Formats: sequence, structure tokens, C-alpha cells
Amino acid sequence: MEAIQRRINSRALQPGEKLPSIRGFAATMQVSPSTVVEAYDRLAADGIIYARRGSGFYVAPLTQPFAVAKVGPQLDRSVDPFWVSRQSLDAGADTLKPGCGWLPAEWMPHTQMRQALRSLGRAEEVLLTDYGSTQGAMNLRRLLARQMMDEGLNLGPDQVLLTPSGTQAIDLICRFLLRPGDTVLVDDPCYFNFQALLRAHQVHMIAVPYGKNGPDTDHFEQALIQHKPSLYITNSALHNPTGASLSPQVAHKILTLATAHDMVIIEDDIFAAFEPTPSPRLATLDGLQQVIRVGSFSKTLSASVRCGYIAARPDWIEALVDLQVATNFGGPSPVASELIYSVLSSGSYRKHIETLRDRLAILRSDTAGRLSELGIIPWLMPRGGFYLWCKLPDGVDSADLARAALADNMVLAPGNVFSVPQTMTHFMRFNVSQMQNPQIFELLEQALAEVPTCKGTGNGFGKD
Amino acid sequence: MEAIQRRINSRALQPGEKLPSIRGFAATMQVSPSTVVEAYDRLAADGIIYARRGSGFYVAPLTQPFAVAKVGPQLDRSVDPFWVSRQSLDAGADTLKPGCGWLPAEWMPHTQMRQALRSLGRAEEVLLTDYGSTQGAMNLRRLLARQMMDEGLNLGPDQVLLTPSGTQAIDLICRFLLRPGDTVLVDDPCYFNFQALLRAHQVHMIAVPYGKNGPDTDHFEQALIQHKPSLYITNSALHNPTGASLSPQVAHKILTLATAHDMVIIEDDIFAAFEPTPSPRLATLDGLQQVIRVGSFSKTLSASVRCGYIAARPDWIEALVDLQVATNFGGPSPVASELIYSVLSSGSYRKHIETLRDRLAILRSDTAGRLSELGIIPWLMPRGGFYLWCKLPDGVDSADLARAALADNMVLAPGNVFSVPQTMTHFMRFNVSQMQNPQIFELLEQALAEVPTCKGTGNGFGKD
Repeated sequence: MEAIQRRINSRALQPGEKLPSIRGFAATMQVSPSTVVEAYDRLAADGIIYARRGSGFYVAPLTQPFAVAKVGPQLDRSVDPFWVSRQSLDAGADTLKPGCGWLPAEWMPHTQMRQALRSLGRAEEVLLTDYGSTQGAMNLRRLLARQMMDEGLNLGPDQVLLTPSGTQAIDLICRFLLRPGDTVLVDDPCYFNFQALLRAHQVHMIAVPYGKNGPDTDHFEQALIQHKPSLYITNSALHNPTGASLSPQVAHKILTLATAHDMVIIEDDIFAAFEPTPSPRLATLDGLQQVIRVGSFSKTLSASVRCGYIAARPDWIEALVDLQVATNFGGPSPVASELIYSVLSSGSYRKHIETLRDRLAILRSDTAGRLSELGIIPWLMPRGGFYLWCKLPDGVDSADLARAALADNMVLAPGNVFSVPQTMTHFMRFNVSQMQNPQIFELLEQALAEVPTCKGTGNGFGKD
Repeated sequence: MEAIQRRINSRALQPGEKLPSIRGFAATMQVSPSTVVEAYDRLAADGIIYARRGSGFYVAPLTQPFAVAKVGPQLDRSVDPFWVSRQSLDAGADTLKPGCGWLPAEWMPHTQMRQALRSLGRAEEVLLTDYGSTQGAMNLRRLLARQMMDEGLNLGPDQVLLTPSGTQAIDLICRFLLRPGDTVLVDDPCYFNFQALLRAHQVHMIAVPYGKNGPDTDHFEQALIQHKPSLYITNSALHNPTGASLSPQVAHKILTLATAHDMVIIEDDIFAAFEPTPSPRLATLDGLQQVIRVGSFSKTLSASVRCGYIAARPDWIEALVDLQVATNFGGPSPVASELIYSVLSSGSYRKHIETLRDRLAILRSDTAGRLSELGIIPWLMPRGGFYLWCKLPDGVDSADLARAALADNMVLAPGNVFSVPQTMTHFMRFNVSQMQNPQIFELLEQALAEVPTCKGTGNGFGKD
């Protein structure tokens, strides 16, 4: 079924074309004819092919649209990245969301946002209604360049491109660098939407085990030699979901390998603001030669005002601007970037970030304690941020737990959502900022008691 | 050169791989060896391939990024869609812009925008800082569905998906429906950014001559039979750049052909609000079976607050939501859609649109008169909107005129920017709302006197 689907997707089989005969195809694929009959019947039920009486099966004539959720292996819904994203984004206000990837709304800088909206109400007409420049507002680009220069990365505002979101920043770079069939390296575990995004680009993903100091460098080198990936996507600072950060040695090693094998790296800095002090960063070590930095303001400022950015080599920025003009006609919303700029440059934003850090440090510790009482053990105590990547009690499958929790209107983020090779069965990502309701721990305890346990299936992850 | 580039782009030639020998490749391509030498030298100069002494040429090892502006034929900069977009988007405040595609900032509904910003400043915290739902805000989707129902299109808010811009709406649909190498039908002339966008999708474009009642139906049918396009993109209401609208007969014929040949249609309704009364619409006739409607608010409300929408079949919306989650994590900015909703639902928005229509009707007529005095003749007097698609005086090449004007800090939109087959050499699109400065007509007169004329090269377009 997959083989046929792939040929149709790649247009090797054109609409209207006749499919191989059942007997012939069974022989080619070395399966029984009844397997082929079943596959054809299911494809016909999906409307992808159709039967002509007495003549065989044909590719359905209507343009077969690209169902991104159907690319790659079909996963259990509870560990499907699309399903988890949609569950948390579309959850009602009464849903408990320890699995989501953001802070509660009341933690965000509203006073500054309201202030920024009021100032914007008095702005010039051009700012309120005209298209913006193709690279995005200069004031915000300059502020970002200055912040990066403080970290030792020399760059001008011309090396910064604003985008409509952090995810769109990565998507734009993928469109720029990747072709269907290319190979991309990701971490195991990694942010689940990297997988969804890469599926949309129809590339192969190779996952490298992620340890407490970054990716396993031996595996990393092996993957470069064996699979020749053109791109590696990672979060260096407060890695999602583990909360780990790169050690200087791993950072240097990764970068040396990337240079030797001509591989571009996207460093997604989305959680950087939560670090007490900056951890080693690939983009900074590399000086933006073959590392591209992306980020956004969704985690600390507002996810409702959407704006992301890319920092990269000048010639790449130039090509990315063209691509953004083609696909979005211009850059991000000037109203959005002005709101972001206004809050970032307000005197009280730094204080807001410090408050967040302090508050999260306490919550990480408290939540780790409460989870431990349930036998849910953090794999690592992160230096910052709101995630705790935890090992469940022996034999508990996180997908089972997520399903049980959902029945109680609670969204969890089970380990395998984050794992391309599906090795994270016994892990769960918790968001400490979304766990202040004590009911969550009661529901967790209850769900743990309900789900089946299966002793002895723990994998090696987390034991080092 | 193009043949090699194509093989590299499609990865038929892998990075590090040796290119065919000069003699061998010359024989294959049936060109002289010196032609191959020249092509290899140029590719080497571009860094796409490199020479190894005594060993031949190799594909450059670094991931060859995708320069969308280099896809397709290399055009004179003044008729390159990217260049014209960037010129008008990045133009300074003192640049004259009769070539741009939007109203002057002072024509837009500022009072309502300022009002909307003030109300937003008092909104709930969740709206200001949280991610939105994956399909976009219900209030705006409901309002759009109601508007379409008024035009006779039966649909619920679940058939509407909000996107971060009108262009992104089209881009998302292209990602959903197209594969590299597919064929897409466009109008000749058509909105130039359709070309840029389709180049980014690496598809073939076939252009059908556009007449005063829509595309030429004989050519259209011929193109369907010969090229089997999977998609047709058009503006039905106040077509860009011509300002023409579909006649009921042409609309019916196009739709019948599309149905017979299983072709999807994207109907970009971006100028619809400028029509005095709605013209026949493919989406409405079809009931959203294989027509997808897209639009945005950039032309009448704000291009700074970016927000677009898609109306389509429920199963397509479902797949498009997944694709938008993957590539943008969630829908458009809730802050943006709330601002749009707030202005659209304010009592004074309808009055604003009526004022725009009246003002533009007078300006279209005045500007047509002033242009005619210079020998620049509107091909059609549109029923609405701000474009006049004009034939230049005999023998004047619009690219020459655009270049001359640019030297005087005036951006024009020369005909061939809108033409895939480059048949619009003697046409120019003018935006009447951007021509209130009398200096523009002086500069035009001056430029017309400067540029060379070449008698007898007029094409047939505009003579019917």
C-alpha cells in the first residue's frame, strides 16, 4: 500500500494510469496476492485509486492532494505530532495542559503588551496600514543584532531577517536548503514539530541519541558518514524536550564535524531567554558561516503576536528574502514587529524575564519533587525553562498514560511524540508552569494506577 | 548550463560527483565543446561546480541552496517579478509608486484601526499572549462565512481557514496540491507574484491569453488537453493587472472544462471588495467542489496587520490545517485576526468601502484622461479597483520606460512582469490611487521622450 502511495505521490504513477495487475505486483513485491488485494481495496476506499469492472485498478483522476499527516509511518494518534499539536492548540480553557509547550497566559507581560498597543494606536498611518519592507522592521532587526553581538556574534542588522513566526523561519530555510528525498539529522528526542515540518518537506530523518551534554558525538559522526545529511536541526540552549544544553566540547566537536561534512545547521534558539547565563552556541562559535540561528518571542512575550527571525550569512539572507517575497509577499506584519519591539525595548522586559526565571526555578524543583512521589523521575534537572523530561515508573507506556489522561480532559506529551525511531516509550515531557493545579497530580496518580504495566521493557535512554 | 543546473537541483547530480567530460557532454547535448566550456566556467564562477586540476569538474560540495529568483529564465531586472516586488516594498517614502499594488496609507481606515487597537488593549490576557486555535479565530471565520453566504455560497465557518496572509493562503494550497514538475495554468497577463510563487514550487506555468471577459476559452480548453494542468490560479473579480471580470458565460465554460479535466482552481478574491456589485465567481458557481477561494484584507483594511483566508471543501481544510500546523505551528496571529474582525465588524467599515469605490471611480476616469494625453491608452475601463492596464504609445517598450522612470525615483510595473510568455512588452499597469502627484505625469512624459521607440512591434493583445 505504501509502495503504491509513494509512486502516486512522486507521480511515477500518473492520474488515470493503470496499476500493475494483482498477480504481477504480488510477485514483484514478494507478497501474497491477497495482500495486494487488501492494499488495493484500502487505497480504493481512500479514493486514491478506483476499480474499472473487468479491467483492473487505476490511479484516481483527481489531483491527489498532499496529506502531510499521512507522510511517513502511521502512528498511534496519541503519539502523532499533528494530533498532539492540535490537541493542545485547540484545547478548551478548562483542559489541563501539562503537555503543552508554553507558559500560562497570565505569566506573560500583559502590562507591557497593553502599553505597546496603546502606543501603536498613536503611531503613524503608514505603520498601521502599509506593507512592511521585505526584510522586516529595522528597529527590531537592530535590537536583535545588538543582542547577538553581546553574545560575541558579530553581525549587522542586514544579517537578520524577520519572519511571520519561528516555525516559518525554519520552514523558509528548509525550502531554501532541502529537496524531497534529502536527509536531515535530528536529535532523539527532538521537538515534535521538527518532525511534522520535515515530513512536509518529504525528507528522510535520521535521529542521533541526545545525551546530557548534547548529541552523542560518535553516533553523530557515524550518521554524517553513513547518511550524508545536508542539514541538522536542533535547540542548543535548553533543548526541547530534555532541557539539556550543549557542553563546550560537544559544541566544538559537532561544528567541526559539520564543517568537515559540509552540513548546514539550524540552531533554534527559542528557549534561550530562559537560560540564567548563555550556554555554548553553535552559531556563535561558527560566526554564522554554516550555522543559521532562528528564534521567536512566543515563549516569553506573546504567541498571539507572531514574529520570528533568522540570522545568517548575507548571501543566504538575500536568497531567503526572495523566497519570502514569493511565498508571503513581503516580510512579517509591521504591526506585529512594532508590538514586539515596543515590549522588548521597554525598561521592564528584563525584569519580566528575571521574574520568569526565578519563578520557574522554584517550580522545576517543586514539580520534580511531586512527580518523584509518583515514581516519575526527571532525567535531568535543567538549568532553566519550563520542561521536565521524565522517566515513568517501570513498564508504563507514556502513550497509554496520555490516552488515559485525555479521557480526563488533560493533555500530556508522551515520549514517542519526540522520537523519530520511537525509542522514548517510557518518557514523558512535563511543563512545570502548567501544573499548578493540584488536580493534575491526582489525575496522574489515578491514570498511573489504571494503565497496564509491562515490566522489563525500559530502554537504555536515561541510564547514562 | 541550464541542463546541468537542473540535474544538480533535482539531485540527479549529487554534491561531489564528477560532471560529464566536456567532449562527452558536448556530444550528448549536440553543441560545440566551447559552449560546454563556457557553461562550466560560468557554473564554476557561480560556485555551483568547481574544477579539480587535471581531473575535470565536480558538483560543489556545499549544499546548493535554492535561489528561487534563479529558477526559470533569467529576465531583465526591470521585468523580473522579484525585483519589482522588492523595489516597491522597499521604496523610500519619497519614491513615486504608480507601479505598486496598494492604496496610499492615508486612504486606509485609520480611525477604525486606532479604535481596534484601543479595544484590544483592554482584551483578555489569553487573546493578547496565547497561541490561537489551529483554524483561526471563530468570530472572523463566522463573519467571512456569512459574507460568502450572502453571495449564494453555502458554507459553515468550519470551511474557512485563516492564514498569515493572502499569499500564504495560496502557498499553502500549492504545497497541498502541487509537486515539482506539475503544470499550472495562469492568465496572460497575471499577477506577477503568482509567477514568483509558482517558481518557488518548481512547477511549469502555461499561460492562457486573457480577454475582456476572462480567459480565452478555446485556448483554455486547448491548454487543458495538451498540458493536463493540475491547477489554475486566477483573480476573477477585477483581475490583476487588467481590471477585467469574468462574464457569466466564460465563468460557466471555464468551470465545465475544469470539471471535465479534473483541475482544481484557486480563485484569489483579493480585489473583490472594490466591485460595485459582485461579478460571477467560480467558487460560487461551483459550490466549493473543486474551486478554492482565497482572499485577504491588505487592499482595503491594512497590509500591516497581515491575515488571509481560504474557503474550501471540508476534507481539504482538514489537510490544510495539518500542513499549517507543520509549517507555522498554529494559525495566524490572534492579535491580527482580532484587529481585522474588529474593523470589519465596526459600523463604519461599509461606509469606508463605499468612499473608496467612489473616490476610485473618479480617479480611474481622470487618470485615464491624463494618460491618454500622453498616448497611453487604457485597454479596458474597469468596473472598480485602482488599476489601469494600458497600451503604451506605438513602439515603446515598457521595460525601457520603467528603467528610465526608476532613474527618476519612480517605480513602474512594466507589462512583461505580468507575462509568463513575455508578450506584454507594450503594456504598463498603473495604480490610479498612487498618481495624485502631478510630477508623475511630467516624469512620464519626459521618460517617454527619452526611450527609444521601435515601430511595428506591437502584439495582438488589446486589439480584440
